[in-house]
Amino acid sequence: MAERLTVALDAMGGDAAPDIVVQGAEIARERFPGARYLFFGDEAEVKPLLDRLPALAAVSELRHTSDRISGETKPSAALRTGRSSSMWMAIEAVQQGEADAVVSAGNTGALMAISKFILRMPKGVDRPAIAGFFPSQRGETVMLDLGANIECDAENLVQFAVMGSIFARSVLGMERPRVGLLNVGAEEMKGNGAVRAAAGILRSIDLPLEFVGFIEGNDIMSGAVDVTVTDGFTGNVALKSAEGTSRLCMEFLRQTFHHSLMAKMGYLLAKPALSKLRQRLDPRRYNGAVFLGLNGVTVKSHGASDAYAFANAIGVAVDMVQHGFLGSIREELEHLSPPDDDAKAAHA
Amino acid sequence: MAERLTVALDAMGGDAAPDIVVQGAEIARERFPGARYLFFGDEAEVKPLLDRLPALAAVSELRHTSDRISGETKPSAALRTGRSSSMWMAIEAVQQGEADAVVSAGNTGALMAISKFILRMPKGVDRPAIAGFFPSQRGETVMLDLGANIECDAENLVQFAVMGSIFARSVLGMERPRVGLLNVGAEEMKGNGAVRAAAGILRSIDLPLEFVGFIEGNDIMSGAVDVTVTDGFTGNVALKSAEGTSRLCMEFLRQTFHHSLMAKMGYLLAKPALSKLRQRLDPRRYNGAVFLGLNGVTVKSHGASDAYAFANAIGVAVDMVQHGFLGSIREELEHLSPPDDDAKAAHA
Repeated sequence: MAERLTVALDAMGGDAAPDIVVQGAEIARERFPGARYLFFGDEAEVKPLLDRLPALAAVSELRHTSDRISGETKPSAALRTGRSSSMWMAIEAVQQGEADAVVSAGNTGALMAISKFILRMPKGVDRPAIAGFFPSQRGETVMLDLGANIECDAENLVQFAVMGSIFARSVLGMERPRVGLLNVGAEEMKGNGAVRAAAGILRSIDLPLEFVGFIEGNDIMSGAVDVTVTDGFTGNVALKSAEGTSRLCMEFLRQTFHHSLMAKMGYLLAKPALSKLRQRLDPRRYNGAVFLGLNGVTVKSHGASDAYAFANAIGVAVDMVQHGFLGSIREELEHLSPPDDDAKAAHA
Repeated sequence: MAERLTVALDAMGGDAAPDIVVQGAEIARERFPGARYLFFGDEAEVKPLLDRLPALAAVSELRHTSDRISGETKPSAALRTGRSSSMWMAIEAVQQGEADAVVSAGNTGALMAISKFILRMPKGVDRPAIAGFFPSQRGETVMLDLGANIECDAENLVQFAVMGSIFARSVLGMERPRVGLLNVGAEEMKGNGAVRAAAGILRSIDLPLEFVGFIEGNDIMSGAVDVTVTDGFTGNVALKSAEGTSRLCMEFLRQTFHHSLMAKMGYLLAKPALSKLRQRLDPRRYNGAVFLGLNGVTVKSHGASDAYAFANAIGVAVDMVQHGFLGSIREELEHLSPPDDDAKAAHA
């Protein structure tokens, strides 16, 4: 950990970079008085923005980078040609101990590939996963993987369950997170081989989590579980299907209030309460997908983030550092993996 | 087709059977004056219900069955031991030409297994799929498969695309349905092998549908497509995730209107419009999942259906019969499959 909590920022990542990155850091600066920011980006673009915010500039450092990774770059190409990019340099700052976490609104695939390459995984993790959190009927809920791993075997799913529950405990403060495996039914015989095998393992090992078994799509946000575990294909579809439905509901609600004069008057009276509803469902509030299973904290802000959303992603990174997420995950995986590794060593 | 449009009903299927089946048929009787109903169920339970509804009894026939398939029965067990069940006999009535369609609120897996066994698939279909429709920003949208096929190859997905678009055209009256393949991104390189290969086939063959390529979860209900094609695992999760989110939104909305006195007054003024919103999102309105790819019309009503929802499922069955869905699907698959089959024959 750097002397003062330091967040490396990919100033060139995202649809509205570098503006929203600098503005987002300014919002974060007010929220987290102790933190420092290390900007990586084009000096000609970023410096004028920082110059206008002297309080932010006072706790920031700008490192010039001449290159950026576009949204269309394939992860493999980013790995080959991205070494002088703002994203690469920001991740490298974490690896070198200059920063405690990195936040980027850039290309997700590239961010994951470069993070894996530079930061590597702790012992016991085969593949990192992308986790996100959003509202549920009982507060907040975590889901992973959201798209890093299209196909997953049982071991991957078990590791996701462990990593997700550590995140829920150390960052969200849930004591014994209830973890569910996403499936098409609650019965043991349901689903594909990977989820059935993963359920068998999760039932048999002793972990500081409560494995509730299989859950269905409607359970993700019902509050039935704190952590939903699934492969990256299904998780990505479930998340985006929920986002689309939430948008549809808000659109239908908008149309409802235009339905009649009475409804319009009702809207005016209920407006303050309805704006709270809008805030509660605001995806910007839940911005900041975290990469779990790396030797470093990488947070992905939505590509279409505005400054407010980007500040929330910085907040997630700060939370993970302050709650010692990396230490917890190393410790618990250490505890989980030895027998297996010994067995492998014995066979080697 | 039977002389008068006849719907076979599994009177013993569903949580509240046989009550909701008989009450649902009574609602349907008023909506579809020409139709007849063939009830399969326990005479001791069903006859008293019918006796109280003479207008329904006049267009109905009751066949006694002594057995029923429970919600917990595995499909394989249902196939082995279910021959004298209400579900089996109702499906058989379709195969024997006594009924034009069958509707059941019973065990989905058993209904699919017995339907496949008795009705079989038309030439060109390897696996039937479950399709459902629900609201979108631009009207209605169809998605399949919703859970019949946990793992699917490219050929399966292509057949689902064809069957789904025929359903959208013949039953929902869409002229040239826009069909999308559900994936984790719009780029060609995204997703697993099956979706990439299916996209290649759909781009290359000439069909009366507009293949828009890959779509993401949020596109299902945005109105970007009329038909969403996916495997049964992903489709089931996406559907239920959307249902859960819609429920969460309505719950948050309810809480919003309890927030303050002003909000409560606003609610009273907007109440008629809000009840329209509730109707619009009411899952009972979209009840009736259709099994596509069988030589017969099988419609699955939700297990927790009430009479109103069950009547809507009967309505879907009536629509499919009246729009000649089976004829359309046979015709188009015939048109689609010959080259392949000839090739196979030449190799035989």
